[in-house]
Amino acid sequence: MVDTVARDEAIVGQRAPRIDALDKVTGRAKYTADLKLPGMLYGAFLRSPHAHARILRIDTSKAETLPGVKAVLTQDKLAGRVSKIVDEEHGTTYDFKAFAQTKVKFQGEKIGAVAAVTREIAEEAVKLIEVEYEVLPAVVDVLEAIKPDAPIIHENESPLTTYDGRILRNVVNQVDVVEGDVEKGFAESDYIFEDTYVIPRAHQAYIEPQVAIADVAPNGKITVWTSTQGIFASRANIARALGVSPRMVNVIGMTIGGGFGAKVGGGVVDIYAVLLAQAAGRPVKIVYNRHEEFVDARPAQGLVMTIKTGVRKDGKILARKAIGYWDIGQQGRGAWRTDRIRSVYDFPNLETHGYDVITNKPLAGAYRAPCGPQVAFASESQLNKIAHALGIDPIELRLINMKEATEQTDFKATLRAIAERVGWAQRTKGPNEGWGVAIGQWTNGSQPANALCALQDDGSLTVFSGLMDISGSDTSIAQIAAETAGVTLDKVTVIRGDTDSAPVAPNSGGSNATYSVGNAVQRAAARVKERVLRIASDMLEASPEDLEIRNNQVWVRGVPERKVSLAQVAQKAGRSPGGPISETGGFNALPSAMTIAAQIVKVEVDPDTGKVWLRYAGQSLDCGKALNPMSIEGQMEGGMVQSMGWGLWEQLVYAPDGRMLNPGFLDYHIATAADVPNLETVLLEIPTLNGPYGAKGVAEPPITPGIAAVQGAILDAVGVDLHEVPFTPERVRKAIRERGPG
Amino acid sequence: MVDTVARDEAIVGQRAPRIDALDKVTGRAKYTADLKLPGMLYGAFLRSPHAHARILRIDTSKAETLPGVKAVLTQDKLAGRVSKIVDEEHGTTYDFKAFAQTKVKFQGEKIGAVAAVTREIAEEAVKLIEVEYEVLPAVVDVLEAIKPDAPIIHENESPLTTYDGRILRNVVNQVDVVEGDVEKGFAESDYIFEDTYVIPRAHQAYIEPQVAIADVAPNGKITVWTSTQGIFASRANIARALGVSPRMVNVIGMTIGGGFGAKVGGGVVDIYAVLLAQAAGRPVKIVYNRHEEFVDARPAQGLVMTIKTGVRKDGKILARKAIGYWDIGQQGRGAWRTDRIRSVYDFPNLETHGYDVITNKPLAGAYRAPCGPQVAFASESQLNKIAHALGIDPIELRLINMKEATEQTDFKATLRAIAERVGWAQRTKGPNEGWGVAIGQWTNGSQPANALCALQDDGSLTVFSGLMDISGSDTSIAQIAAETAGVTLDKVTVIRGDTDSAPVAPNSGGSNATYSVGNAVQRAAARVKERVLRIASDMLEASPEDLEIRNNQVWVRGVPERKVSLAQVAQKAGRSPGGPISETGGFNALPSAMTIAAQIVKVEVDPDTGKVWLRYAGQSLDCGKALNPMSIEGQMEGGMVQSMGWGLWEQLVYAPDGRMLNPGFLDYHIATAADVPNLETVLLEIPTLNGPYGAKGVAEPPITPGIAAVQGAILDAVGVDLHEVPFTPERVRKAIRERGPG
Repeated sequence: MVDTVARDEAIVGQRAPRIDALDKVTGRAKYTADLKLPGMLYGAFLRSPHAHARILRIDTSKAETLPGVKAVLTQDKLAGRVSKIVDEEHGTTYDFKAFAQTKVKFQGEKIGAVAAVTREIAEEAVKLIEVEYEVLPAVVDVLEAIKPDAPIIHENESPLTTYDGRILRNVVNQVDVVEGDVEKGFAESDYIFEDTYVIPRAHQAYIEPQVAIADVAPNGKITVWTSTQGIFASRANIARALGVSPRMVNVIGMTIGGGFGAKVGGGVVDIYAVLLAQAAGRPVKIVYNRHEEFVDARPAQGLVMTIKTGVRKDGKILARKAIGYWDIGQQGRGAWRTDRIRSVYDFPNLETHGYDVITNKPLAGAYRAPCGPQVAFASESQLNKIAHALGIDPIELRLINMKEATEQTDFKATLRAIAERVGWAQRTKGPNEGWGVAIGQWTNGSQPANALCALQDDGSLTVFSGLMDISGSDTSIAQIAAETAGVTLDKVTVIRGDTDSAPVAPNSGGSNATYSVGNAVQRAAARVKERVLRIASDMLEASPEDLEIRNNQVWVRGVPERKVSLAQVAQKAGRSPGGPISETGGFNALPSAMTIAAQIVKVEVDPDTGKVWLRYAGQSLDCGKALNPMSIEGQMEGGMVQSMGWGLWEQLVYAPDGRMLNPGFLDYHIATAADVPNLETVLLEIPTLNGPYGAKGVAEPPITPGIAAVQGAILDAVGVDLHEVPFTPERVRKAIRERGPG
Repeated sequence: MVDTVARDEAIVGQRAPRIDALDKVTGRAKYTADLKLPGMLYGAFLRSPHAHARILRIDTSKAETLPGVKAVLTQDKLAGRVSKIVDEEHGTTYDFKAFAQTKVKFQGEKIGAVAAVTREIAEEAVKLIEVEYEVLPAVVDVLEAIKPDAPIIHENESPLTTYDGRILRNVVNQVDVVEGDVEKGFAESDYIFEDTYVIPRAHQAYIEPQVAIADVAPNGKITVWTSTQGIFASRANIARALGVSPRMVNVIGMTIGGGFGAKVGGGVVDIYAVLLAQAAGRPVKIVYNRHEEFVDARPAQGLVMTIKTGVRKDGKILARKAIGYWDIGQQGRGAWRTDRIRSVYDFPNLETHGYDVITNKPLAGAYRAPCGPQVAFASESQLNKIAHALGIDPIELRLINMKEATEQTDFKATLRAIAERVGWAQRTKGPNEGWGVAIGQWTNGSQPANALCALQDDGSLTVFSGLMDISGSDTSIAQIAAETAGVTLDKVTVIRGDTDSAPVAPNSGGSNATYSVGNAVQRAAARVKERVLRIASDMLEASPEDLEIRNNQVWVRGVPERKVSLAQVAQKAGRSPGGPISETGGFNALPSAMTIAAQIVKVEVDPDTGKVWLRYAGQSLDCGKALNPMSIEGQMEGGMVQSMGWGLWEQLVYAPDGRMLNPGFLDYHIATAADVPNLETVLLEIPTLNGPYGAKGVAEPPITPGIAAVQGAILDAVGVDLHEVPFTPERVRKAIRERGPG
């Protein structure tokens, strides 16, 4: 049958402007800080000035009598108000730890909190709380922390014995991975490289600081307005901390001003807003300032990683072994991702050992592709070094070792794509200029997701979801819904619910937002379409198979004058026994395929000052299906800028006593527009079987390779092989001096 | 196969306490008036002091300059801001009429509105608006209004010619119904009765006055918090009035403090709050006071009805003819329900003529079984008179003329049920005491409804709906969901969404809330159950047919130890490719069966003062299936009290110049606990095929018969046959005097 209906461009694949753009650029979007509830109080924290100290005494009496103060909390005052946590290892139970009680373990740790009628009074009251400390030596460096004579941070800690019989202190977790026999591999190799790489902790540097407002009804029902990447995870964590049913907690996700992994779970401010609201009997708002962000948020882990690699003359790597010490601060994990040095390479022998090391620093959290940039920096930097040493092209070295293409992915093609775009083979460089390359890999996860699609009487389609939009996911999801249901994009409204009302949604993290919820929306929209076709079939007296939906109309194929609008179908449905058209779809657990981002950068180094300029940055990514190329390009650009910034400037600097030395954007430099060249992006579309329209998660791969690409470019430019991030002018200059005349 | 699982009581049918009870009795429930938005203004109205007058001049200049005033609106100022309404009859278009412009047509009509920073300033500003009127003669009485020389209220009005050639003024609608040949019926009758009944307009007397808050975003998106019986109807009406897409309007239904039909559509305050918010650029709250309720809300129509009935000696009625003049005030309708005198009787010949008559009174709205009590008063009172005159028992007279039982209903059984409970055959009475009986009929409607049911990871079930609960519907719906999905009632949470997010729901009116949404919820819960059984079937390695769900567990029949909890099933689903369990159900258009409420009252009359005491009141109702008997009894009691109150005390009294004479509860007496005896209720359960679990709508039948039951009891007590409501002491005493010694 001839298709006589003019077919529009597909909606999936369009460079659709973000549906939230206008609200955001005009200031209409409502952030949590914009909200003010009647009777609302303001919270402030008492924080430890010491990184490690015993608390001898806390006296809140003066703070409590300050006019305007409505609640003063310490851990002692929480008895019975928070969950009993069972410590199975030690056979003990203890209250959920909201505040330091007997010991502080990092500078900025919360010791108490105050709610008062103004923020100023709350801060004044905090100053009136008297705390007596006995300062203890701080543990700052992971390699110091693991030594047998290191100060013990966690009092119940017992030393850990490694795979090779060493005794380590302050390690809470070890993960060993052995594939093949690395010693045999090393024996068969022509060359052995062994290097140690150091990368510091970094802050996610989102624009909007952590913020929450909590209100508690007389029946105990908790409402939290917050900036979160996932309302359901926040609900779960609040309920768990307070020992209440999740049904007693409603989390309302406000517009979020960035998160990058750090706004998951509500542990930084949400729970405290609730505790204060419970104590004060009034709503409480907490807004972090930037200093608080730097001393007590959830930055990325630092890593010290030693990699030993055995390689044949022809570039084939026969064995790799890595030992990684992860600087998790007071809590977090990295050890389980030490084996990410495997990446997308076909290493016949691999051995990794990861250790999560406790230091007197704040808890580590997730930062976009958590642990990915750190491992890729070490792993890919060493590949650059090997290529340089062996005189093999660094792209060629990677191609030699890469896994072959599958039906769902093609790493080599992805890497070649950016090489071709750059004209790698014909690349040129001036004095002190160099080219670097690196790849980074990620496989998006999937998490439980539901969505509701409802066709309204005016023919518009409502998508109801609990997903937070941190990356343009609302727009991609609207495109999926529009494409699947046959409506135009302008007819789709994406509505976000709270946890009381919304279908279950995952955190917007792990590159799984669009993957999981997109699939759920696609299924819901498909059910809408199915019902539309059934009803239209009656209205048009044609079999559903002969119908198609396009441009908000249902058409009989081959008879363009026989059509009904979706509005008419919706109204007809509303009058029918089945009622209005409103359908759900659910998704989880169908895996995606691994994908890589490949990045090439060109730098220029000033050999006198050590300053590094980025002169070119390009990137290719296999995105599966580009649901919205503009949105994916934004993800690619943002991720690459973040990784190059981490490579060149970003680091959380701690003094030997554990004090944070650069708690603000004046001293913590993130990449600005002036620092970054125009960015080139190349999309490959190799669909994954289970993604919506074949899409893969695209948020995380782009942040992984950038640091090593810069390292490779500096190596190419001035012949120095840097092992420690960031590549500050001091370090570059020092390395050039140590290198001697080039 | 033996069912080895102990079966609990069914949840549907339980006398479950209302799930909103605790919130309401403890003051936790949030009403619109409880809300205060940042920057919120307060609205007040300029109202006409005259019932009928020409507006010669409006000067708002002084009001506009009063400090604190942020917006002053009149119809002139709305040009271009409201919808163009097409008047097809006159071939003209005009702006949506928010305010009187050239003429006021009832006392209290809105001429302008002010928004100011306090309500006091707004009211002060209203007083500063100068209006010059030319007062016109008012039309108050419907029988005067229709006369050829009556003042003309609507200027475009043209006289209407009736079925019998009479010319009527001020009539906007006529409805004629002819079944059989009444003249032939009258000719065959032994007796002819002809009576005229008069019933005044009555206020629904909800506790919470009309109230709304509106906020308008810079992009024009309108948010309205309101006390409404239906958020979707409010949205539609606001969108229509303002000429915007419904997608640009979000209506949030707050807890509602009664409505009884008067809080439908948002025309009384919602639209005005929006207009003021648009003009002022800030949120605006409008709260009616009680005086405003009485001069400008949406009370019930008055009716003057003449009924002619032909009856055989044996009590068989052969013909009835009715002419009804409905006092709709400025707008509304009643004519189309004049034929409700048909009721559930088998009249071989019927003829009715209804006229909607315009008077200088506020617009008429819906009041619980709209028009039902008025017609039943006339129709059933005359039956009481006929029974009395013919010496036939009034119950017997009704049974003689009633339609026979069907599969879905049994009117005679319903009437007999209360007669038996009372011991009608053996009833006794003292001096000046009397018994009365009447019936009233209703068939609930159905409207488009959707609902979402989601099984949460803790095994609880969320019901997400857009239905407003004015009558306990949330509780019945929770019972339906629990029963259908197999969870206990305490595990169900009913969540109400706004129009942006919620599944479509009907107005809570027309006895169709539980019927329509209950069906939608039952279907959604059944889909949840279906998915649960599929997943549990895998987990338990048993076929779905061998499983049953009870008490939050899925059991294998006959093997009680093989079971999984619904929480486990929900979690398993969340990890599966299909994702979490979340399903919709929809409903409309499947009819219910007609049902009656039958009421018996006993009164005592003081012949000297004319005062009537209610001594007994009992009622039977065929509710189809009693989803929650306690809830239904509440509906029966409430409805009966309202109708007895209308019969004895309630009336909106207008002076000859159209001024309202009793605008407050001091002068408008509604039944109090002191006025009403304990109420007896008898439930019959004859399931209707399409109701959820067989349920019929129960809200409306109980208000219909009470007035006539009281009339019959007074007739029985003191032998006077009253034709005008309410049966005040003055009227009763006058009738007794005119009767002469009994």
